[in-house]
Amino acid sequence: MDVYTLNEMIRYQPDKMAKVDLAASPHLICGLNCFEPGQQQKVHAHKGADKLYYLVEGSGEFIVGEERRTLAQGQLLFVPEDVEHGVVNTGAGRLVVLIVIAPNPHP
Amino acid sequence: MDVYTLNEMIRYQPDKMAKVDLAASPHLICGLNCFEPGQQQKVHAHKGADKLYYLVEGSGEFIVGEERRTLAQGQLLFVPEDVEHGVVNTGAGRLVVLIVIAPNPHP
Repeated sequence: MDVYTLNEMIRYQPDKMAKVDLAASPHLICGLNCFEPGQQQKVHAHKGADKLYYLVEGSGEFIVGEERRTLAQGQLLFVPEDVEHGVVNTGAGRLVVLIVIAPNPHP
Repeated sequence: MDVYTLNEMIRYQPDKMAKVDLAASPHLICGLNCFEPGQQQKVHAHKGADKLYYLVEGSGEFIVGEERRTLAQGQLLFVPEDVEHGVVNTGAGRLVVLIVIAPNPHP
C-alpha cells in the first residue's frame, strides 16, 4: 500500500523552498512544498494542468492571477490550468503545503 | 480565488458517509468524505483514474486490493487506477478524508 506519513517527510533548505516528491503517475503528481519564513515559490504556470494546494501547517500569501490572499492551515486552493500562481511564506513560522498537479506535466 | 476552508465544510449524515464536493475540472475532482464511527465506503474502483486520500482528522482502516491498513491523521494514500479500494471508520471518533481523483471520472 502506497502510504506517506507527511510529518516524517517534511524537510527544509536554508536557501530556498524545499520540494519533497510523493506519489506520481501519468494522471497526477503530488508532493510537499516546505517554506522557512520569508521563502517563496516564484509565480509560474502549468500548461494544461490544474493544481491544488492544501495547507498542512502555517500560513502564507498565495498569488493566483492578479489576486493575492493570505491562507492558513486547513484551507485548500484550486488553481486552474495555465493560470499564473505563486506563494510567499509571510507567516512567522514554517509553511508546509501539500500540492497535487493533474495531469502530470512531466509524465 | 477558488479557496475552500475545510473546517467550515465538514458535515455528517446519520445513515451513511457524507460526501462534500470541492473543486472539479476535467483533470480532477476533489472533495471530503466524512465518516461517523463505524461508517464505511464500500470497496469500489475508478476505471482509468487514480485516487489520493489525505487524512484530515481521525483514523480508519483502508483497503487497497488485498491489503488492509489502519491510517491516521496526516497520512496520505495513493490508489492507482482500476485498483479496488474502500474505507471503514474503525476509530472511536469521526474520520475526515480529503480525496482527489484524477482525471475526473465524470467530466
